[in-house]
Amino acid sequence: MCVEKTAWEQVVDFHGHTCPEISLGYRVAQIAMRELGISPAPNSELLVTAYTHSCALDAFQVLNRATYGRGTLLVNEKKQHVYHFQYTGTSEGVQISLRSEILDHLVGVHDYENRREQQNKYLETIQFFLKIEEALFCIIEKI
Amino acid sequence: MCVEKTAWEQVVDFHGHTCPEISLGYRVAQIAMRELGISPAPNSELLVTAYTHSCALDAFQVLNRATYGRGTLLVNEKKQHVYHFQYTGTSEGVQISLRSEILDHLVGVHDYENRREQQNKYLETIQFFLKIEEALFCIIEKI
Repeated sequence: MCVEKTAWEQVVDFHGHTCPEISLGYRVAQIAMRELGISPAPNSELLVTAYTHSCALDAFQVLNRATYGRGTLLVNEKKQHVYHFQYTGTSEGVQISLRSEILDHLVGVHDYENRREQQNKYLETIQFFLKIEEALFCIIEKI
Repeated sequence: MCVEKTAWEQVVDFHGHTCPEISLGYRVAQIAMRELGISPAPNSELLVTAYTHSCALDAFQVLNRATYGRGTLLVNEKKQHVYHFQYTGTSEGVQISLRSEILDHLVGVHDYENRREQQNKYLETIQFFLKIEEALFCIIEKI
């Protein structure tokens, strides 16, 4: 039987491991697509600018089809989990900023020496990031 | 019926379009895997350093599983189509340098105004890159 991979499976498969940051990217990527809607023209490309480099970027490569090789995924390093999405040929994009309370959950999340404890902490954090109410997760602005 | 995508289809699907540079990356990625063999340890990761940024990078993300988000694909911009692949925890990698005669075929390849002529030129160039004898395609060194 042929079962299509879920979006989450596609992202984790491409990324190569499961971690809290990729789950942040996964959620942000989907909010961006919902806010922007479908491509406004056949030749319009989605440009993604990230204001920090993290594992989250791989979710944008898979779900938003903005790839590093093609030059549609850019990093402007400001150490901020702020992400801007805009179709080429349009005047307005959407900016998604993660709330500081969310980012507090990343502090120390990678510091477990025991492999099983580390994995459990990751899964707990991922569940939290994916389930928390959107208004508590991020700020969405049209820019 | 469920038909697995070919490696080429996986790369082009991820990259978002078919172009000569992605075919260069596709061939280089496969040579690297043949030369390096399987991963030397379960936790060893393949690091890829590219000495120029181009569409070719997306082939390394898919076929070598070295992603930009995870930080295992790096660009050290020297405007050279030279690519270094090495597993973490090993002392030697493989460096693949495209021959200048190959790169000559990229000159003017994107300059066609007519869409059909552009596409035909791309396909002709891709066929050439994928078929030419390996010794005429690149230099392979253990470094």
